[in-house]
Amino acid sequence: MKIYTKAIFFLGITICCTHQINAQKQLYNYVDPMIGSEGVGRVFIGPSCPYGMVKPSPDCTSSPNSGWLPMPKEVTGFSQVHVSGTGGGPKYGNIQIMPFSGALDKMDQTSFRAEENVKLGYYETVFKENNIKTEITTGEKVSFYRFTYPKNTSKELKIDPGFFLGEEKIPDAREAQQFVGSQIEIVSDTEVRGYSRIRGGWNNGRAYTVYFWAVFDQPIAKYVTFKDGKFYNNQKAQFDSGKKTAALLSFGNTGKEELNVKIGISFLSELKAKNNIEIEIPHWDFNTVLSTLENKWENLLSRIKVSEDTSEDYKKMFYTGLYHTMIMPVDRTGENPLWTNDEPYYDDFYTIWDTFRTSSPLITLIDSKRKVDIINAMLNIYKREGYLPEGRSGNDNGRTQGGSNAEVVLADAFVKNLKGIDYELALQAMLKDATVPPGGNEEKEGRGGLMDYLKLGYVPYGTDRAGNRTIDYAYNDYNIAIVAKGLGKMDLYNQYIKQADNWQNLWRSDYENNGAKGFIMPKDKDGNWLDDVVFGESKIQKPTFKYTPVIIESPWYVCHWCVFFYEGNSWEYSLSIPHDVPELIRKSGGEKAFEDRLNTFFNSDLYNVANEPSFLTPCLYHWIGKPYLSSDRIRTIIKNNFNTSREGLPGNDDSGAMSSWLAFHMMGLYPNAGQPYYLINTPLIKETIMQLENGKKFKISAKKMSDKNKYIKAAFLNGKAYNKAWILHDDINNGGELVLEMDSKPSAWGTTIFPPKK
Amino acid sequence: MKIYTKAIFFLGITICCTHQINAQKQLYNYVDPMIGSEGVGRVFIGPSCPYGMVKPSPDCTSSPNSGWLPMPKEVTGFSQVHVSGTGGGPKYGNIQIMPFSGALDKMDQTSFRAEENVKLGYYETVFKENNIKTEITTGEKVSFYRFTYPKNTSKELKIDPGFFLGEEKIPDAREAQQFVGSQIEIVSDTEVRGYSRIRGGWNNGRAYTVYFWAVFDQPIAKYVTFKDGKFYNNQKAQFDSGKKTAALLSFGNTGKEELNVKIGISFLSELKAKNNIEIEIPHWDFNTVLSTLENKWENLLSRIKVSEDTSEDYKKMFYTGLYHTMIMPVDRTGENPLWTNDEPYYDDFYTIWDTFRTSSPLITLIDSKRKVDIINAMLNIYKREGYLPEGRSGNDNGRTQGGSNAEVVLADAFVKNLKGIDYELALQAMLKDATVPPGGNEEKEGRGGLMDYLKLGYVPYGTDRAGNRTIDYAYNDYNIAIVAKGLGKMDLYNQYIKQADNWQNLWRSDYENNGAKGFIMPKDKDGNWLDDVVFGESKIQKPTFKYTPVIIESPWYVCHWCVFFYEGNSWEYSLSIPHDVPELIRKSGGEKAFEDRLNTFFNSDLYNVANEPSFLTPCLYHWIGKPYLSSDRIRTIIKNNFNTSREGLPGNDDSGAMSSWLAFHMMGLYPNAGQPYYLINTPLIKETIMQLENGKKFKISAKKMSDKNKYIKAAFLNGKAYNKAWILHDDINNGGELVLEMDSKPSAWGTTIFPPKK
Repeated sequence: MKIYTKAIFFLGITICCTHQINAQKQLYNYVDPMIGSEGVGRVFIGPSCPYGMVKPSPDCTSSPNSGWLPMPKEVTGFSQVHVSGTGGGPKYGNIQIMPFSGALDKMDQTSFRAEENVKLGYYETVFKENNIKTEITTGEKVSFYRFTYPKNTSKELKIDPGFFLGEEKIPDAREAQQFVGSQIEIVSDTEVRGYSRIRGGWNNGRAYTVYFWAVFDQPIAKYVTFKDGKFYNNQKAQFDSGKKTAALLSFGNTGKEELNVKIGISFLSELKAKNNIEIEIPHWDFNTVLSTLENKWENLLSRIKVSEDTSEDYKKMFYTGLYHTMIMPVDRTGENPLWTNDEPYYDDFYTIWDTFRTSSPLITLIDSKRKVDIINAMLNIYKREGYLPEGRSGNDNGRTQGGSNAEVVLADAFVKNLKGIDYELALQAMLKDATVPPGGNEEKEGRGGLMDYLKLGYVPYGTDRAGNRTIDYAYNDYNIAIVAKGLGKMDLYNQYIKQADNWQNLWRSDYENNGAKGFIMPKDKDGNWLDDVVFGESKIQKPTFKYTPVIIESPWYVCHWCVFFYEGNSWEYSLSIPHDVPELIRKSGGEKAFEDRLNTFFNSDLYNVANEPSFLTPCLYHWIGKPYLSSDRIRTIIKNNFNTSREGLPGNDDSGAMSSWLAFHMMGLYPNAGQPYYLINTPLIKETIMQLENGKKFKISAKKMSDKNKYIKAAFLNGKAYNKAWILHDDINNGGELVLEMDSKPSAWGTTIFPPKK
Repeated sequence: MKIYTKAIFFLGITICCTHQINAQKQLYNYVDPMIGSEGVGRVFIGPSCPYGMVKPSPDCTSSPNSGWLPMPKEVTGFSQVHVSGTGGGPKYGNIQIMPFSGALDKMDQTSFRAEENVKLGYYETVFKENNIKTEITTGEKVSFYRFTYPKNTSKELKIDPGFFLGEEKIPDAREAQQFVGSQIEIVSDTEVRGYSRIRGGWNNGRAYTVYFWAVFDQPIAKYVTFKDGKFYNNQKAQFDSGKKTAALLSFGNTGKEELNVKIGISFLSELKAKNNIEIEIPHWDFNTVLSTLENKWENLLSRIKVSEDTSEDYKKMFYTGLYHTMIMPVDRTGENPLWTNDEPYYDDFYTIWDTFRTSSPLITLIDSKRKVDIINAMLNIYKREGYLPEGRSGNDNGRTQGGSNAEVVLADAFVKNLKGIDYELALQAMLKDATVPPGGNEEKEGRGGLMDYLKLGYVPYGTDRAGNRTIDYAYNDYNIAIVAKGLGKMDLYNQYIKQADNWQNLWRSDYENNGAKGFIMPKDKDGNWLDDVVFGESKIQKPTFKYTPVIIESPWYVCHWCVFFYEGNSWEYSLSIPHDVPELIRKSGGEKAFEDRLNTFFNSDLYNVANEPSFLTPCLYHWIGKPYLSSDRIRTIIKNNFNTSREGLPGNDDSGAMSSWLAFHMMGLYPNAGQPYYLINTPLIKETIMQLENGKKFKISAKKMSDKNKYIKAAFLNGKAYNKAWILHDDINNGGELVLEMDSKPSAWGTTIFPPKK
């Protein structure tokens, strides 16, 4: 596959329109970066290489997370670093540029868009005010801009390293990015260098620095530099004195209307950014940059091929799903300013709480060598900084939301036999999370509330997010147990497999709600169940709040990350025990009661499609021998919530979490991350062929599938009858074919052999 | 005083030899930077402004802490950043330069010294091999070098941003500085820019970057650049790819023999380093730089004047003591790469465990406005990073050795009424230390072992440094109590004044050793005293070690920072209860037993003059009404251990800790840091006049003092009989005179009113 890619790449240089000739055949054409861009999806819409370090995109006013907002919002400029699908305070938005026409006398060059076109690797807009066209494509570490100015108008460009997303009036407000410093130098009549240094943002991270080197294919005719509100003529440089700096450049109104700009970025230095340009894009051919990017994506996307008869919409939803999954975390190998950098280095784990369930397993399936690099980067972060990342951005760990979910990622790699990982080191890193409290900042890394968890077997009410922390820690302990067992450390296994039951310590078995009995509920340090919970810290007032399993909101004066369950309620979390569904069923009153409970959950709008805690829940019918009900739920959820529109994702995409949930289900597979199998559901795509990195192929075919024939009647793995509604990763990895025979009625298939138990 | 300084400064420009004309009268001439440079003192010997950011000095082979080692050790070059008096793994040693003559074909230009001369602000050496003379002086952020090459030889210079101190074969060995990256660019024929990025060192800190801008007063005739073992002709820049870079420059063999070089440094950027040169040293006059530095020191040193009849040796010891006290921490205001930098910012608290006892109080006395800035910088570190510094270097907190001694510094400022500090914030910062365990890295900041300390009232054996941590935490709790009381928070006062007794929980009252009874001894979690303590973690072997109060060493396999008492034994630490000497005396069996104990301590070599834990102990006779015995001990200790030689300090100077202990005792005062008084002892200087920053003066005169008349017979404060052997800070700060009448015999003076109690 790689050889093929290279061939295309070189063809791309000699025949510049290769990508257009092959357009209809190539899979990247099915990627629509606008899916999930509006509403709650918040996906990054600009061009990006797979796991690409540079992510150029327009920044619209009012600080959106991905930079972009739909028209008619104004565009303040185009910055080079963004994230995809995140919530909370924005991060990045560094090194902003903006074309304009006119005097070099004001920093604000905000414009409205007259049009906008986006496809994979390509962004285009024309500004209303001045008719300037902006086109963007990108390399791994270098953005490429083509500006076309109207005939006979003057060509100006702002370069603003003082800009960043998420600026707030209170500079050190929680989650606000905060300005630390910036610098700019006009190096020659075709080069500008500088940097932006910012701290904070959603992960409350330490200062990070984005260095840049910009080159132009036309000489600068005139310029002013800017610092702290003032413009300076004939001053080539504005040094960093903790103030915002920028430059306004004029390329005159003669010569060609097209101005090409390359912006190399680096986290090490401006010269490294320059070198990144020289290595990656030594030429001025926009189309070559674009076709190189397209080929990189084609190489990855073509690892899963779908049958020709798949609808255009499904192809778009599926390949866009794969695409969204592989734009983060970000490959910063060779760009690590914190330690020697000849090892893989990844940043923007944003966050593993979101991605461990589906994004991470999907990368394992499509791009397992990359996954090994990502995990080795995580282990290096542990070695050098003391803890695995849970969230990480701007070269700093933070924040945790629930568990220390790197454990799931490591266990998932272990049970799926990924090679090239030091699992002894991995276990040591996991044990650090499980035994050493993170201390002063209990939401940066590790496990907040750990001492209580170890002492009491649960996190007591009073510690932020006590409920979901308890549940996640129990699962993370299970992950540790599995790896320990695999490494022959039975003492550790015995200890952690026991701790994996800790979720039961918050199970209030007599508590009833909406016809269901037994819920994860708040308990205090002394072991008392709490019906009313105290909020606030006033010594005089003791405001309380009735806590029930359907409550998700909290009083206005309580921060949303301080509640018992983070971004969810007890109904959701009381169904989120991925390692011990059989015990959960037993505790819920047996199979019948559990089925009723699931039905109530989905039928009474207690299920929240917009967030990750309930990702696995539609599949729980598998454990009561009714996989067809799982498939029914999944089909309905997808039909009602996912589509090819700009609002086609029902929640924050969170680095591809939503998108990969969809992509898995479209294939008819769903991973239980950290465990070696996938659940089998009715796919949306009739035929899927995975080209595995080991050279083997695995095909999933749903015979006679239609809107009506939506139930699996029988299955055959490599020609042999297969009665399990789940399949081991090894069975896929060994290559072969899974044939599903479809029917219009539920059958007995998959009803007797339940998924592997704890 | 400031106006006077400025006048001198401008005179310095017009009459370049001002500093020589006034030489005999000015106090800076009594500073000998070589005192304490050999043996264990490890003081920085190069030129430095007070609290100066740049500290240029030779680096000798084998990684010394201050860079310098005595002849005949080879010099590898001169780097721009150093620390003074430290132990453990070296820090800094960045941006090394080295003059040489010959081909541009090798990085190693190491030379032997033929001569070397050092005075305040000035370093000079001539190399044996090539007769090149190097002279160095410095500004706050800019080093100034004057190289004189022999006639008709070619003038070459190495600039090596890849160099750093403390490199080890195992790159991430504990306490080793580790290379992260470097970069160099020949900007023009008179300018070079670049940086050095290093992590680790004694405080195991995150990566820091020292940027530089070098300018020459002669044009570069020829150069090669260097990267990762190879030389490059005609390549002006070597970008950062995680490899060592450097440049060899030739200034030819024509023109003047003198090459002047200015090296600006910055922690923000190269352009900021350039700006630092432009602002601070816009000219090429070596002598002006030197006289400016001398005047800065003169301004500070002249705040304490000693009588004319003081011996030359005593003047040298005293003023060098003041000098050593004020070269660290380092003023990096405007150079903070971590957050907006318009507030005071200091780095290189190295460490407060060393400096809280005497350095910090001496700065309060001489330079209280500076002290307020330093404390505000500490509070900013708390605000932005979550914890006050205990140690801090390279923009990162770390390490702790005993307590969270920032508490002592804050309490000291509070009881001495320093204005301009938000003491509510200070209390909040102190309470963070006292209540929130630092977590994952228990030696970076805060209080390691805190949970046990809070639960048990002591740190149990098994936690590193359990003994001295318990003692220090108890004192730090006392500091909190005092500030809380002063702010009217009696609940907090009551809680912490109780915790201040926690040292008693490790007091093993029936334990006898060398005739003394009662010692701080190791106790396990269950409350059992341990006679034999386990070392090592083997499951098969259970090696034990008999623990006694005289033991300081540990078995070879135990790290020296993991023992029960850090850098001391129980004899020392069992006398280190600075907030409750009366109770210590009671527990030791009363006044007689305590006097015997002290005598045994000093007469049997149990006292360790080389380290800080016993700094206060010679004064403890005050609390049994025998201050003359304190004075006797102090005089003997000074006579036997301190002098004007290069080995004139008996231990690591630790940012001036040893030096300030000496300076206080020479004046006849000794602070009990964190408490509002100074103990009065027989001074070594007959008359001391302090010029306080509030405009007032305070004079201490010892009338008729001689080698024989070494006992205080009577004292008079502002003419009134004064019978206390201690004096309040306020009494000094209000101005006035303390007259001590001396006699040849101990008297009843100071024997009845003991120092203030807890």
